[in-house]
Amino acid sequence: MRDINFDLLYSSTLVEGKNTLQDFHAWFSERVQSGKFEVDLAPLDSLKGWAMDSISGTYGHESGKFFTINGLHVELEVNGDVRHWNQLIVNQSEQGILGLLAKRIDGVIHVLIQAKMEPGNIGFIQISPTVQSTRSNYTRVHGGKSPKFIEYFLGKVPGITIFNQLRSEQGSRYYRKRNQNIVILLEDDSPVPEDKNFFWLTLGQLRELHKVPNLVHLDCRSIIGGMPFAIPAEMDNPCTISTGNMATIASLHCNDSDALNSQRDLMSWFTKEKMKNIKHTKLVSIDEAKSWTFDGISIKHDSGRFFDIIGVEVYSPGREVASWSQPLIQCVDGGIIGLIAQVHNGVLHFLIQARFEAGFIDSVELASTVQFTPKNYETPTNNQTPCFIDYFEKDTEYEMLVDTFLSNEGGRFFKSQNRHMVVKIPNSEHIVVPESYAWMTLSQLYYFGSMELTLNVELRSLIFCLTFT
Amino acid sequence: MRDINFDLLYSSTLVEGKNTLQDFHAWFSERVQSGKFEVDLAPLDSLKGWAMDSISGTYGHESGKFFTINGLHVELEVNGDVRHWNQLIVNQSEQGILGLLAKRIDGVIHVLIQAKMEPGNIGFIQISPTVQSTRSNYTRVHGGKSPKFIEYFLGKVPGITIFNQLRSEQGSRYYRKRNQNIVILLEDDSPVPEDKNFFWLTLGQLRELHKVPNLVHLDCRSIIGGMPFAIPAEMDNPCTISTGNMATIASLHCNDSDALNSQRDLMSWFTKEKMKNIKHTKLVSIDEAKSWTFDGISIKHDSGRFFDIIGVEVYSPGREVASWSQPLIQCVDGGIIGLIAQVHNGVLHFLIQARFEAGFIDSVELASTVQFTPKNYETPTNNQTPCFIDYFEKDTEYEMLVDTFLSNEGGRFFKSQNRHMVVKIPNSEHIVVPESYAWMTLSQLYYFGSMELTLNVELRSLIFCLTFT
Repeated sequence: MRDINFDLLYSSTLVEGKNTLQDFHAWFSERVQSGKFEVDLAPLDSLKGWAMDSISGTYGHESGKFFTINGLHVELEVNGDVRHWNQLIVNQSEQGILGLLAKRIDGVIHVLIQAKMEPGNIGFIQISPTVQSTRSNYTRVHGGKSPKFIEYFLGKVPGITIFNQLRSEQGSRYYRKRNQNIVILLEDDSPVPEDKNFFWLTLGQLRELHKVPNLVHLDCRSIIGGMPFAIPAEMDNPCTISTGNMATIASLHCNDSDALNSQRDLMSWFTKEKMKNIKHTKLVSIDEAKSWTFDGISIKHDSGRFFDIIGVEVYSPGREVASWSQPLIQCVDGGIIGLIAQVHNGVLHFLIQARFEAGFIDSVELASTVQFTPKNYETPTNNQTPCFIDYFEKDTEYEMLVDTFLSNEGGRFFKSQNRHMVVKIPNSEHIVVPESYAWMTLSQLYYFGSMELTLNVELRSLIFCLTFT
Repeated sequence: MRDINFDLLYSSTLVEGKNTLQDFHAWFSERVQSGKFEVDLAPLDSLKGWAMDSISGTYGHESGKFFTINGLHVELEVNGDVRHWNQLIVNQSEQGILGLLAKRIDGVIHVLIQAKMEPGNIGFIQISPTVQSTRSNYTRVHGGKSPKFIEYFLGKVPGITIFNQLRSEQGSRYYRKRNQNIVILLEDDSPVPEDKNFFWLTLGQLRELHKVPNLVHLDCRSIIGGMPFAIPAEMDNPCTISTGNMATIASLHCNDSDALNSQRDLMSWFTKEKMKNIKHTKLVSIDEAKSWTFDGISIKHDSGRFFDIIGVEVYSPGREVASWSQPLIQCVDGGIIGLIAQVHNGVLHFLIQARFEAGFIDSVELASTVQFTPKNYETPTNNQTPCFIDYFEKDTEYEMLVDTFLSNEGGRFFKSQNRHMVVKIPNSEHIVVPESYAWMTLSQLYYFGSMELTLNVELRSLIFCLTFT
């Protein structure tokens, strides 16, 4: 077996492969032009198959499948201070598959991405993993066709599983939701049927495309962001590579002793943060989530902040089912996912937050330095303004390692995008690190990435943008 | 900083330290003789402060603290087969601290163990970690004294945190329960007050004591069993050591390529097993857990199998609170925790099971080859007899690497012990490995041990017995 660790990283350094990025853009715009779909807003109480359930007081599908919109009571105790709040949350207990098919082409690992329409997508079509399927979907509760290539991810075609992990979704929107993030490497001579909706890219090309706003679907970023190259980690003996972005590669390959905090200390800090955040949550009806109101058209917070649940009717002949209705989450716009970077001991470090979100399985996960929506803090509120937002709000004089707009998934979110920013602060600037924050190298972030329930999906999305090209 | 990785392993190979094991036994029997305590069985409805709550239908303490006995509805779907059952479960949402204080004495890491009385202990006194404290306990809900040495684990004394992880408890008895398992290494010159109830042992001595039946408390085994020596793992470049048990050390230090399954494949297999076991659980009243009956004295299953909840009254002047009443779990006796070992590629491997337990946070954790109580299968039942029990039930002709009786914790379990067995099967014997089982080296087990929610507590207890001495 050839060295998968090296080959994954090598592919991540390449912006040329079987196809050029120019080829990709030509293919993609052809896909966009040939797409036929229509998405119309519709009142929640008019959506076919969806209704408010009078017994549970939740909004869901008559089949009992897909997901429901619930209320959630949250009690959070931190260092003796107890806060309570209610919020809406999407309750989707079934685990879906986010699958990427990979194959060596001319010796270089390529992944098969898909031009996929989703009703909430900005621009309708984005590039998704090879398969992106809920269990209802691939067991065909909808009726409809089987998702293309699903058999590769159900163990029916021989291949090497490079990565296979249950990774969390947005803990502020979903209740304990995880998806199976999986990458299968086929044998070199294993034929893959051609399909006009699918396209081979190197990992470097896919990640490079983060620079195009709202092009790379969250589910690609979810899988690849912080997906470890080496399992087990080669912490003190990494493979050497001479091409690519030496600043990010050096941060990926640094010894633990060059990091500001040892991995041992970081893992202990993470456990302490989990212990510190003592939560009790309880799924309730929408009515019981005081301050949230269903008026037949949508469900909104009385302040107009946070997010609304709205309805859409969709017509899309290219999907497994050609037309359907569904609710979507419409967030207050202007969200920012931002990471502070700084060089310590000659190695790029990132300031990571142990962040509580009510829907997490655990109490906290690792998150970017800031993850917030300024408009939610414009009016007086009980919520403290988060730390470090100044680095991201004003016109910054700092070097921007990443600055792009990327979307939440359009199957659940309506035209929701977040500005993704990584700002590099000069060494001369001293940052006081609060208790719930810690500096980490890329090496350490990828190490955490090998464990479940660590990197939240917004952080994975940002790490995806920290390319090796 | 000296090399903690090496020093932990080195200490684990030593059966001599500051004290000999003979010193230990002299000290321990003195502790047993000086102990004053009395434990009397008492009907549940007579326990002071404890009662059946008429609203929730659960049995608990009037303060709302400690824990409650609930019913649990369980639905488990595996490969399309759906099973339902009800069971009792202990609901204790607060996380406690299991803390071991460590210090280098004459250059060798020692840990400070405690002779501690618990009402359900066989022999009343066992050797516990330095601190073993629920949150109610160290925040003094009981009233009473602060647990001795607790300040070392609340960040109030400088020291290096060697290990700090939320580790699961018995998933068949507890609902989503985890404790903080933590080891703090003090500076060499940091004074530790002498106390007649505490004693310094090397890690090798502590683990060697597994051979004495019901002496080493589960909480010690919980912390040390599968606690990684190296963080991050030194998979292909381990420290070398020339003393100790070369068979277990070789299995701990083997390269991933010498293992039957790569770590990458094992992690993928574990995720598949999680996906395969689709569970829905719901806490309910004891009444709703059909087949379980509260008669004022105890709560039992109508078949007499599984376990009972009984009550005790305790008098123990040495504890933080001198007398109290509480419920305990009395299991059907004869439990077996057994592991099959076999040499593959010259390295000792162990046959590990991905096991569902209703109270796990996730659906499955890694468990020993068998974990069962024969009496629960004597009468006709819906439960399938587990695989591989033949290796542990009859008088075996195999080499026994481990064969000892060890207890469940006496703070929740009444005189509950499990036979711990590791049988080494000759290479000539071919074992067919079912889907939910996989061979792993000690190296791989310790690697999993660095991640949360992986090794279940029974497996950790067995790994504790796989000594390096």
